[in-house]
Amino acid sequence: MTESLNNKPIGVFDSGIGGLTVVKNIIHTMPHEDIIYFGDIARLPYGTKSVATIKKFAGETVKFLLSQNVKAIVIACNTISAVAKDTVIQLAGHIPVLDVITSGSIDSVKNGDVLNHTIGVIATPTTIDSNAYTKAIHNLNPNINVIAKACPLFVPLIEEGLLHHPALELIATEYLSSFGNQNLDCLVLGCTHYPLIKDTIQKIVGYNVRLIDPAISTCQRLHQMLKSNDMLNLKDEMGNYSFFVTEISRTFKQIGESFLNQPINKLELVTLE
Amino acid sequence: MTESLNNKPIGVFDSGIGGLTVVKNIIHTMPHEDIIYFGDIARLPYGTKSVATIKKFAGETVKFLLSQNVKAIVIACNTISAVAKDTVIQLAGHIPVLDVITSGSIDSVKNGDVLNHTIGVIATPTTIDSNAYTKAIHNLNPNINVIAKACPLFVPLIEEGLLHHPALELIATEYLSSFGNQNLDCLVLGCTHYPLIKDTIQKIVGYNVRLIDPAISTCQRLHQMLKSNDMLNLKDEMGNYSFFVTEISRTFKQIGESFLNQPINKLELVTLE
Repeated sequence: MTESLNNKPIGVFDSGIGGLTVVKNIIHTMPHEDIIYFGDIARLPYGTKSVATIKKFAGETVKFLLSQNVKAIVIACNTISAVAKDTVIQLAGHIPVLDVITSGSIDSVKNGDVLNHTIGVIATPTTIDSNAYTKAIHNLNPNINVIAKACPLFVPLIEEGLLHHPALELIATEYLSSFGNQNLDCLVLGCTHYPLIKDTIQKIVGYNVRLIDPAISTCQRLHQMLKSNDMLNLKDEMGNYSFFVTEISRTFKQIGESFLNQPINKLELVTLE
Repeated sequence: MTESLNNKPIGVFDSGIGGLTVVKNIIHTMPHEDIIYFGDIARLPYGTKSVATIKKFAGETVKFLLSQNVKAIVIACNTISAVAKDTVIQLAGHIPVLDVITSGSIDSVKNGDVLNHTIGVIATPTTIDSNAYTKAIHNLNPNINVIAKACPLFVPLIEEGLLHHPALELIATEYLSSFGNQNLDCLVLGCTHYPLIKDTIQKIVGYNVRLIDPAISTCQRLHQMLKSNDMLNLKDEMGNYSFFVTEISRTFKQIGESFLNQPINKLELVTLE
């Protein structure tokens, strides 16, 4: 008799804290699922590291998640999705892998969303320079015009908690006002931090532009995949959530709880090698 | 006959770009000196790395500067000054070493500047958490009250070039307005980036608070040391400036030239080991 997959946890990982926005959506959509979160705080940021190093780090993380007996792996980090998705899939074997770039891109090109055949993408300079969203969108539909824009100050502003500060609106206007003339079908929030300021972004780009949150897209695909493979957790109680980090930073709990919108009770230090 | 030291270059190093504000001051004060700048762009930021790693990286950099035959070494980086000054001094042997934290602290406690016995320090979270300025000031005068404040958004705002943007003033007011009631004798700009926004800082803390720019303090001590040891370059021509980096980033030249206030003509890639 094979062991049931239903009761196993879902593994979610990121280089840092941003992936907690994906966890928040999983908790909201699938409240009975257990979740193991892994954040490689000690070695962030990944964005400035070489492809070989990021693949190595991602590989070590996958081995850790597999040792925790996960039933699915979610890459909740744009940098890792951009450069190390194949490494993760290969190491994960038969365990299904989802990532934010593929999920967000699929969502952005859905029928009916491409009236003007124009999609905007905002992200960190590293993600924009990797061209990963443009490539993923063009793989799905080569006729779409993708307008990509780096917004370097959004992450530090969000991590400082200035979510509703007038300075945020001034800087967001600086970055986003040019999108107003582009007839966007939708705008992809290509950084896991950005959903925390989506009200400000929506106001500036206009209410006719649909915002794509890849954390939500990933979560929808995850739910669909678990359901169609009879892998959903069927228990009645709420899920258990464990958070593993490679360094206990002074801000992880504080910022993390605002990303997650609930307390982080179980935070454990883990050493990879 | 011993080789004259006068014509040898001055070595200045940082984990990144900020140390160029020290170079700017050296060029201004000692225009006939040759300068070798080293920025470890590939491995920044140092602030999140362990003490052992920072010492290792600083050691590698010192060996590179010594191979360039420098007559003095300037640590133009607060993180390296805070944790690896002793390593640099030891490796440098008879070559004199100056650093921004020691120089800025000496300047801040000068007689006449401590009427209220209160000094403010602003810096990145890493420098503030290291407590290095407070320790250095208390070593010089244990009776001084040091008020330290981290300003995490200043570096990203400055690197985005928003030096005169209204958002900068809003955020600076958020960080600095509490200093208004503290009767500061002076405020140390404990991050090499901050002199670029000193007008905004001065306006908010008030014109009676003297701003201490450790880049200027370091440069004054360097001039004094070279002069009293007969090590100043006596040539008539302007100095030559060489910039070595461990990665050619897309922004080093652009941001660097604004820090330096002149063009960067000679930028070379170097690999350390």
